[in-house]
Amino acid sequence: MTFSTSRPLRFGDCDPSGIAYFPSYLNILVGVLEEFFASVGAPWKELIAERQIGTPTVSLDLTFARPGFHGDTLDFELAVLRVGRSSLDLEHRVSAAGRLLWSARQSVVATSLDTHKSTAWPDDIRAALESRLETSDA
Amino acid sequence: MTFSTSRPLRFGDCDPSGIAYFPSYLNILVGVLEEFFASVGAPWKELIAERQIGTPTVSLDLTFARPGFHGDTLDFELAVLRVGRSSLDLEHRVSAAGRLLWSARQSVVATSLDTHKSTAWPDDIRAALESRLETSDA
Amino acid sequence: MTFSTSRPLRFGDCDPSGIAYFPSYLNILVGVLEEFFASVGAPWKELIAERQIGTPTVSLDLTFARPGFHGDTLDFELAVLRVGRSSLDLEHRVSAAGRLLWSARQSVVATSLDTHKSTAWPDDIRAALESRLETSDA
Amino acid sequence: MTFSTSRPLRFGDCDPSGIAYFPSYLNILVGVLEEFFASVGAPWKELIAERQIGTPTVSLDLTFARPGFHGDTLDFELAVLRVGRSSLDLEHRVSAAGRLLWSARQSVVATSLDTHKSTAWPDDIRAALESRLETSDA
Repeated sequence: MTFSTSRPLRFGDCDPSGIAYFPSYLNILVGVLEEFFASVGAPWKELIAERQIGTPTVSLDLTFARPGFHGDTLDFELAVLRVGRSSLDLEHRVSAAGRLLWSARQSVVATSLDTHKSTAWPDDIRAALESRLETSDA
Repeated sequence: MTFSTSRPLRFGDCDPSGIAYFPSYLNILVGVLEEFFASVGAPWKELIAERQIGTPTVSLDLTFARPGFHGDTLDFELAVLRVGRSSLDLEHRVSAAGRLLWSARQSVVATSLDTHKSTAWPDDIRAALESRLETSDA
Repeated sequence: MTFSTSRPLRFGDCDPSGIAYFPSYLNILVGVLEEFFASVGAPWKELIAERQIGTPTVSLDLTFARPGFHGDTLDFELAVLRVGRSSLDLEHRVSAAGRLLWSARQSVVATSLDTHKSTAWPDDIRAALESRLETSDA
Repeated sequence: MTFSTSRPLRFGDCDPSGIAYFPSYLNILVGVLEEFFASVGAPWKELIAERQIGTPTVSLDLTFARPGFHGDTLDFELAVLRVGRSSLDLEHRVSAAGRLLWSARQSVVATSLDTHKSTAWPDDIRAALESRLETSDA
């Protein structure tokens, strides 16, 4: 049930040493996460505008194994590891031409945009996220 | 021997939910690291242009404790934890008004821009980095 | 012969006032221009790495007619207005749901990465760009 | 009465061809404009949070005269050309080591964050902006 999507690594994402600039990777990663939420029926625009819920990141552990180069196609794989009351734990693996470039463990927390405190996932979103859980059989 | 510097959290660094956009934090962090290298006599421009050495990040563990808001002054503290043959381990603490917003453990590796493989720190740079090491007495 | 492509306007491209952050529009625009060059057989990676030619922007006149909102699909139309010895004049029109959001006139110049001076377009690239010229019959 | 400020051109603002990436210039420019508004007593945070007024850009004409290089100090000069009922016309000149790199004409419009329509400048802000008008004697 891994979610997959691809992005080109563009000129503007690279730095004067000729490789990917890692803050640009993370801007791309946030877009991938946004696409994942939309794919499970929880587009961020609705979450923010109609339910006043944001999904800020509370921890992110990044490992950069190989440099990415301008022109690479970045293949993203996103796995749901755990769905908590208000939290969501994810694993990302990002490859180019079949070789792992970098990986990440990310935790986000459903948060009230009014109070900036955590809030339980609405039932429909929890169900959608849980349906994407990795299982030991997978 | 902690290195300290400050940055405003600007409009353009924040997102539609009204708080700091974390990829913008990391763009700012790279600028702080660049300022630290300049402060020890190893400006990146010289490293890249004259010695063909880059300092890519190989791991970065981020913890976001509280949201940052537009208009905050971000106070950065950078501590050197370890200087290896070609690696450098750092700890960052980022606060606003005395309250910790986020922290990071970062490892960078001196890397040949030709081969994209690790290379030993030049002696002068190693000495400069080691002079900033945190000590147990500090 | 207009070149067309689309991009989502993502969370990370918007600002605390809830609309598109225009520097993010321009980062997206550079990616659209990169896609256009690839579509005519002149991918930037080859231009830069093999021919040592860059295509910096020398002028850009922007008109923002309506705000773009998070979740919009941005439809880009790029028209080639003129191909000079080393210059290229373009017009961009960017719409969402059929309504114009912003437009731009852009001039780029083929430039030697060694001297940072203008250089004539290589013949094959000139021919490819000219094949995309708008004509009065179009 | 020109407003002046400086910024370093950092590693992360440059591209694989080794020069400034122009969308990064514009991110920096927005920060300079934010600093200008704060300098006249109209910080954006208050404008947005307390008065529900944004200052989106409606036109921006950019001329890039020379490339900026990693390590340059960018000297910004901002001149107020005209203050309209809800508009503000500015000229920016950006130099490094006394040589002009790029310039811009920019128009922003005071805009209600509720309706996204233009709104008159509040009297105190209009007075502050007018006090910075360039005069023919200047």
